[in-house]
Amino acid sequence: MKSRIVASLDVTDRNSLIALWERIRKNVFAIKINWPTVLACGKSIISELSKESRVICDFKIADIPNTDKLIMEQIRNEKPFAVIAQAFPGMDSIDSLIENAGEIKIIVVAAMSNPGASKYLNPNFPRIMDDIRERNIYGAVVGGNNIDMLRETSRNKGNLKIFSPGIGVQGGSPVSAILNGSDYIIIGRSLYNSSNPEEYVDKINLDIENALATKK
Amino acid sequence: MKSRIVASLDVTDRNSLIALWERIRKNVFAIKINWPTVLACGKSIISELSKESRVICDFKIADIPNTDKLIMEQIRNEKPFAVIAQAFPGMDSIDSLIENAGEIKIIVVAAMSNPGASKYLNPNFPRIMDDIRERNIYGAVVGGNNIDMLRETSRNKGNLKIFSPGIGVQGGSPVSAILNGSDYIIIGRSLYNSSNPEEYVDKINLDIENALATKK
Repeated sequence: MKSRIVASLDVTDRNSLIALWERIRKNVFAIKINWPTVLACGKSIISELSKESRVICDFKIADIPNTDKLIMEQIRNEKPFAVIAQAFPGMDSIDSLIENAGEIKIIVVAAMSNPGASKYLNPNFPRIMDDIRERNIYGAVVGGNNIDMLRETSRNKGNLKIFSPGIGVQGGSPVSAILNGSDYIIIGRSLYNSSNPEEYVDKINLDIENALATKK
Repeated sequence: MKSRIVASLDVTDRNSLIALWERIRKNVFAIKINWPTVLACGKSIISELSKESRVICDFKIADIPNTDKLIMEQIRNEKPFAVIAQAFPGMDSIDSLIENAGEIKIIVVAAMSNPGASKYLNPNFPRIMDDIRERNIYGAVVGGNNIDMLRETSRNKGNLKIFSPGIGVQGGSPVSAILNGSDYIIIGRSLYNSSNPEEYVDKINLDIENALATKK
């Protein structure tokens, strides 16, 4: 089965994280971890999970080119599948990440799913998409709770994979995000707070499979 | 002596970092560390340095409110002096940091010093300053290599302290940044790559003191 789920496991207790990961890792496309997990567990958690999963380091990197280079040097040996960066600091920063990525794929935030992002970040998303389509970038992050933005992005995405957070707690629906152009949906709180995460993941995988079959 | 220097120690070897810190910590206002150092040394480096210095965690936090909360929960017990965040993800994210900061001060990036920042981030800096002046925020980051922007910012800063990177390798001068409105200058590569960091720090402290005395 080819899952479209990226499981965002913002769990900071190492044992709980590993236990949850064991339960779902075979039925999701990738595991996404963020700074809280790395702060709690140390960077070795990246390589540990990477042995049996694609791991996306959702670091929202937003710094100058030199610091971006130093961050990539620190995580390259942990062998994550991808790292997420912000476009807002500029394309010199993004280019530094690409140059220093080694085998790590770069995913760039084009729009965010929180309401406050509508002021500074999201109005720029068409220009950000133009900037990143020209580069050696694997994917773009666009909230699954904003269907208009998602459609506009997916019409013009080139080879980029579209990753959509904002599913579940933040209001988006997995099927609606996929039908409107997401390649992968990012599910966090509603997954890791679920009483039965395997069932939760299986149900979404099936819903998406059915919706895509009906669409054809 | 009241130093205006924030020493940005992007050093990833723990022993080298501690050795350098011992040499300069009494003659600078604060030590700034970033993700590369925390990835290399673990988050305990924050509390270790905080025992004898103000430590600014330059994390350029750029995430949704819930993740920002989780990051603050992870570092609160390490007792850094301040944490640096990006404004462009929105004020809901900034408000989440403030709510979860405990004793940690929040410093917000209003403009960046790398050339690429002129496209998306820096054109928004007057609006970002308006947004952050209204909040319980300690300081704003504005590049010391853009004097026009620095002057405009400092004219209208309210109670905010202005922190200016972009000094040294990136082209700004310490004295010029201070005379044009910076409260603190952030010095990184030109300090930690200096053959004599104590002398380097002392010279800048003296240059600033003299320039301010002459101005009066």
